[in-house]
Amino acid sequence: MNEVVNCAAYLEGRRIANVEINNIHEVLDHPEQFLWVGLHEPGEETLEKFQKEFNLHDLAIEDAHAAHQRPKLERYGDTLFIVLRTAQKNTKHQRIDFGETHFFVGPQFLVTIRHGSSISYADVRNRCESTPHLLRKGQGFALYAVMDSIVDQYFPVVEALEEELQNIEEKVFNEKPTRQTTENIYQLKRQLLDVKRAVSPLIDISNRLMRYDIKLISEETQPYFRDIYDHALRINEMVDHARELLNTALEANFSLISISQSDVAKKFAGWAAILAVPTMVAGFYGMNFDFMPELRWHYGYPVVVAFTISLCVLIYLMFRRSGWL
Amino acid sequence: MNEVVNCAAYLEGRRIANVEINNIHEVLDHPEQFLWVGLHEPGEETLEKFQKEFNLHDLAIEDAHAAHQRPKLERYGDTLFIVLRTAQKNTKHQRIDFGETHFFVGPQFLVTIRHGSSISYADVRNRCESTPHLLRKGQGFALYAVMDSIVDQYFPVVEALEEELQNIEEKVFNEKPTRQTTENIYQLKRQLLDVKRAVSPLIDISNRLMRYDIKLISEETQPYFRDIYDHALRINEMVDHARELLNTALEANFSLISISQSDVAKKFAGWAAILAVPTMVAGFYGMNFDFMPELRWHYGYPVVVAFTISLCVLIYLMFRRSGWL
Amino acid sequence: MNEVVNCAAYLEGRRIANVEINNIHEVLDHPEQFLWVGLHEPGEETLEKFQKEFNLHDLAIEDAHAAHQRPKLERYGDTLFIVLRTAQKNTKHQRIDFGETHFFVGPQFLVTIRHGSSISYADVRNRCESTPHLLRKGQGFALYAVMDSIVDQYFPVVEALEEELQNIEEKVFNEKPTRQTTENIYQLKRQLLDVKRAVSPLIDISNRLMRYDIKLISEETQPYFRDIYDHALRINEMVDHARELLNTALEANFSLISISQSDVAKKFAGWAAILAVPTMVAGFYGMNFDFMPELRWHYGYPVVVAFTISLCVLIYLMFRRSGWL
Amino acid sequence: MNEVVNCAAYLEGRRIANVEINNIHEVLDHPEQFLWVGLHEPGEETLEKFQKEFNLHDLAIEDAHAAHQRPKLERYGDTLFIVLRTAQKNTKHQRIDFGETHFFVGPQFLVTIRHGSSISYADVRNRCESTPHLLRKGQGFALYAVMDSIVDQYFPVVEALEEELQNIEEKVFNEKPTRQTTENIYQLKRQLLDVKRAVSPLIDISNRLMRYDIKLISEETQPYFRDIYDHALRINEMVDHARELLNTALEANFSLISISQSDVAKKFAGWAAILAVPTMVAGFYGMNFDFMPELRWHYGYPVVVAFTISLCVLIYLMFRRSGWL
Amino acid sequence: MNEVVNCAAYLEGRRIANVEINNIHEVLDHPEQFLWVGLHEPGEETLEKFQKEFNLHDLAIEDAHAAHQRPKLERYGDTLFIVLRTAQKNTKHQRIDFGETHFFVGPQFLVTIRHGSSISYADVRNRCESTPHLLRKGQGFALYAVMDSIVDQYFPVVEALEEELQNIEEKVFNEKPTRQTTENIYQLKRQLLDVKRAVSPLIDISNRLMRYDIKLISEETQPYFRDIYDHALRINEMVDHARELLNTALEANFSLISISQSDVAKKFAGWAAILAVPTMVAGFYGMNFDFMPELRWHYGYPVVVAFTISLCVLIYLMFRRSGWL
Repeated sequence: MNEVVNCAAYLEGRRIANVEINNIHEVLDHPEQFLWVGLHEPGEETLEKFQKEFNLHDLAIEDAHAAHQRPKLERYGDTLFIVLRTAQKNTKHQRIDFGETHFFVGPQFLVTIRHGSSISYADVRNRCESTPHLLRKGQGFALYAVMDSIVDQYFPVVEALEEELQNIEEKVFNEKPTRQTTENIYQLKRQLLDVKRAVSPLIDISNRLMRYDIKLISEETQPYFRDIYDHALRINEMVDHARELLNTALEANFSLISISQSDVAKKFAGWAAILAVPTMVAGFYGMNFDFMPELRWHYGYPVVVAFTISLCVLIYLMFRRSGWL
Repeated sequence: MNEVVNCAAYLEGRRIANVEINNIHEVLDHPEQFLWVGLHEPGEETLEKFQKEFNLHDLAIEDAHAAHQRPKLERYGDTLFIVLRTAQKNTKHQRIDFGETHFFVGPQFLVTIRHGSSISYADVRNRCESTPHLLRKGQGFALYAVMDSIVDQYFPVVEALEEELQNIEEKVFNEKPTRQTTENIYQLKRQLLDVKRAVSPLIDISNRLMRYDIKLISEETQPYFRDIYDHALRINEMVDHARELLNTALEANFSLISISQSDVAKKFAGWAAILAVPTMVAGFYGMNFDFMPELRWHYGYPVVVAFTISLCVLIYLMFRRSGWL
Repeated sequence: MNEVVNCAAYLEGRRIANVEINNIHEVLDHPEQFLWVGLHEPGEETLEKFQKEFNLHDLAIEDAHAAHQRPKLERYGDTLFIVLRTAQKNTKHQRIDFGETHFFVGPQFLVTIRHGSSISYADVRNRCESTPHLLRKGQGFALYAVMDSIVDQYFPVVEALEEELQNIEEKVFNEKPTRQTTENIYQLKRQLLDVKRAVSPLIDISNRLMRYDIKLISEETQPYFRDIYDHALRINEMVDHARELLNTALEANFSLISISQSDVAKKFAGWAAILAVPTMVAGFYGMNFDFMPELRWHYGYPVVVAFTISLCVLIYLMFRRSGWL
Repeated sequence: MNEVVNCAAYLEGRRIANVEINNIHEVLDHPEQFLWVGLHEPGEETLEKFQKEFNLHDLAIEDAHAAHQRPKLERYGDTLFIVLRTAQKNTKHQRIDFGETHFFVGPQFLVTIRHGSSISYADVRNRCESTPHLLRKGQGFALYAVMDSIVDQYFPVVEALEEELQNIEEKVFNEKPTRQTTENIYQLKRQLLDVKRAVSPLIDISNRLMRYDIKLISEETQPYFRDIYDHALRINEMVDHARELLNTALEANFSLISISQSDVAKKFAGWAAILAVPTMVAGFYGMNFDFMPELRWHYGYPVVVAFTISLCVLIYLMFRRSGWL
Repeated sequence: MNEVVNCAAYLEGRRIANVEINNIHEVLDHPEQFLWVGLHEPGEETLEKFQKEFNLHDLAIEDAHAAHQRPKLERYGDTLFIVLRTAQKNTKHQRIDFGETHFFVGPQFLVTIRHGSSISYADVRNRCESTPHLLRKGQGFALYAVMDSIVDQYFPVVEALEEELQNIEEKVFNEKPTRQTTENIYQLKRQLLDVKRAVSPLIDISNRLMRYDIKLISEETQPYFRDIYDHALRINEMVDHARELLNTALEANFSLISISQSDVAKKFAGWAAILAVPTMVAGFYGMNFDFMPELRWHYGYPVVVAFTISLCVLIYLMFRRSGWL
């Protein structure tokens, strides 16, 4: 049965047994033990079994079954139902893969349910098991450990977005304005909004876990949730910072497009003048007046050509000096 | 009498009788029963009858008569008066049809009043009647069932708007800027604002239903209103997300209009130069100087033509390389 | 004495007497009666008389004398001083006329003071007198009746502004951008801000009247102030909605100005090309080379003309197809 | 000693004596008296003397010595330290002169300290002394009187800014866009921000003075601080209103710049066409074909000239009708 | 051992001994003494020693080890952990160098930990030691002294940014729009955001230190933290003010770019007209009609030239007057 990745009983911070679903009630009979269950996109049947064993609420199970919930913390009697969004950099496709992890935390159990793209929590479990003096604080600490690993995965994601912002700055200020840059700004904005949407509810969730009187979270575990709260605040702040800079970059980009439009106009005007002058001169000596003494001079032609070329060079230099060319 | 779509008495979650208006007082004599009344754009007369039977407040009846209320929850003694806006995708006309549903909830009754475009709540009633173990929670649960169906109808509406946003993105970034795209952005903005206006009061309404001490909503029904609260939050968030992206799209669109304006100017400048050069050359050899040796050469004409064409080709290639043509 | 429009004593919801200023103290001796006084831009002298009779605070009288207060609710001992702004559509001059109404409400009196443009409250008084079962609720109900009529006058005003917004939309999206449209957007913005400024304090004022423990407002009158609260919210929302759309319209207008600027540039470029080609061709055959065989052909001239015209037509069609002309 | 402008003892609202610094302790021995001291940019020495007499806190004295504090209200034991910013229109230089006034209010004293540009408070003192029935309310009333005169000086300042806004509107909508108008918008924005910065803390300060349980402000003086609160709100609102209009004006200005840019382009295009046509025609009849019958006709020249002029007039009229010229 | 910059015991506000890490417990045995420890980028080992001596929490030590925390105040039992960001103007590279200082404050100790660029706190310590009557207030006063010196370092930083803003204004309104100005605006925006991010949490931190019931901060030390609170507010306000002006400057810059674009177009149009007119005239007299009387006149040529030049001068003057040239 692949949906149940892991299901183990813990006593005094140490794993004492791997447990079959059908034997869960035996563990629950020992109030000093707790169960840590890891599920991955479980089917309806599996969820129903756990619902019966742990006495979970219909509405929470309905939510746990479907992904695409917004991050939230809900309390059903003495059980907490938590939804978090996970994020990972997909370096191959230059995008962020979002997933979801749902938690049921009760008096003697922690159930984690992974949906969509997300890494396994086996590593977190191993690290917890290697520090039994911490894990003995109970399922609240296990919850912290998994949440912490989820939040920490946002840092590389946001740093990658900050790097992308720097690339965009580089392009905006040092290269010619292109349609691509504008689209990149838009796409980065979209990604920042996505991360913001995933992270900002975390502030409230961890704040409630660290503050309110929830018996499941012992007083000595609360500082750990404050740590998560602090990280969530930091990620949020990084995203807001990047967004505000991006907005300014969009406006600066726009100003620079206008300036380069102006440069095109100036260049055009300059060359138009340089071409218009000889055309005008040639037109004059193309007039058919009977009496135009210059036309009769032997050196009229070369003199006029030389004069025209000098005039063009002069105009060119003038435009050059005033920065139009 | 068509205004009263349905009027039935419920006991222990089961429909025990369809009731005539005049017999309502008989049901109210049995405190363990409750009435579920469905009205559709009722006239003044009908409303007055129910007002008398259920002892409803003048101001609430006045509101219930007229549509175009804003969503709200008002308490008159032990009766709640709730106004919600309903929304449906009108696929034929590419727009959203908004309607209104008003509720009176009292100690022994639930009255729903539909105004404008909205689907009948017969389906909701049927589903409720098929789960008597839930409906026995009372008229509070029936209220939840109808509100839930109203809120759920917003999801396809908002998803359609998100799709429209993607169409607009597609057009902004991959097609030439047109007046139509700008107008589409505006119309989508308007629709998002309309949905926002209809949904955002729902957050407060469901929050109050789920939290405050309203005897009509039993404690075990409250999590259901939290579910509605959660959905309202989600819809609201989707709308805000779309709005912020749309604002950025509007600005990006504007940048791209400027870039394409610049492209027009460059193209024009390029071709103007290509046409100006032969005009200038031709002008020169149209001069009437007596002594212009080239004019006398036998191959003067073809040489000059060839030279001019080469020059034009050269200029063309130069502009091509610098991206102006 | 024209400043005192009306001054009557009420008992059990019925007008029992019109009272002279000097006899007011006689009414105040009967605690079951109350006085309803209507003033219109009263002079200092008149105000002083009422101040003495009703024992009003210096600061409130100072405010009541001068118009141009902001809407507010102030409590001086057991007397309330309320300032509201009134609004009326001035259809002749296409603008909104704002006025002010001040209220003093005390244990046995209601004084309304009208400043500037506003309609008389005689109608409100008549309607109240025709429903003595409501007016017997006391001066609190009379206060409600006047405030309600003031708030209801905002609806046609805001609807007129919404209509003006639609006119602007129509012009922005279907007509050529003009200076006038931009100015209209600005003027509408100004009017929306004016209405907002007049209405938004009303939300707080009516909220306080409906909630807080003010003995002057009996518990059964409070729902009526909630009605005003609800209307104030709705007007406020309509204004905010219009403002946000107007901002988007301003930006859309700007995009469309740019697009039409681009259209001008394209059209100019197209016709410039069509005129430049024959000029160039003509220039060529105006060259004075001795040996230009075409010039000698009998049909050279018409052939060249025909060729040039064809070329122009071809260019015209090309521009046409690419949408530049 | 010029730093001490005034130092007088008051009893029952009447000035009973002018007091030397060294005799202050004598006044303090009579609890029914209070001292009202007016300082102007006092030196360290002077401040130290008062610090000793009135037992003021080090930090407050440090602040009182240096100008450029932000407006604030601080409580040190039973003494209040208040900082306000004063503003005056400088009509000569078209700018606003800001100053600062600091207050120490204690059980038996009021000290006002003026910094920078500000008018003397001698007038306020005179007015207070002429109404001893008010001034007997104690140093709280004297504080009110000075604060009121400070706040009232903001009204002409803000009205001048509103007038400047109207000038800008006038220029934006009725004149050609200039660099000067844009700079004026920016300078007005800066001034509005300066006023806002000076006034908005006043709302909180007066709110605290009117609400909280500060023994120094007797209950009957509190309505006077509500008056200041109300004025501060009004100034603040006027500033916000002007700021929002100014933002819209900046955007409208920008739209109008674009429209007038478009007008330049149209005008240029029109005249270019009118000049290009005769040039083209002349070019044609400058061709050197042997067989061009028109060239041989006696009236060829005037006919062609007439035709060309007619064409130009026609084009001119066409452009005129379409609004390009 | 270079990581420990300073470690001294204080009694009654006087330094009584420099203490080795290993002897810390001896000081802690005297409750009337306190330790003031200054660390600079300490290694894990050093931190662990202090953790053991002062019984600090794991999570706080983890944070104290790594820089790049956001400013915060956390309470672990009777110990406070505070993180502040320090800022210094780097005049050489025209940028701001940010550092971090962490504090542990406990019943008998203050530990400051400097990370990154920051000046030593030796000066602060010296100043404290020179005012033992203040330092005897305990480690809370020492904490104030260090925090105060950190906050005061922000003033020159923000003033430098305000100066940079004035430079930008100068360039925007008095010079031609350049790419550089736009980039400068962006860079200033970034710096303002960085300072804002560093300073704004300080408001909350100092507010909590000055208000809440934290035994470590004696009541008479609280006004000192209010002083810090006040400074933090002021810096924050200066930054917000500069940001809002900068946003307006960005928009004004944009308007001015458009205006100067317009100026380019007008200049171009003007000169194009001046050059087009003689070209057209010359074209006319280049026509080959047999009968063109002017061509035969002896003074035809000079007259036409003179006429053309006059026309050009006339056009030039016209454009001059209308401001296009």
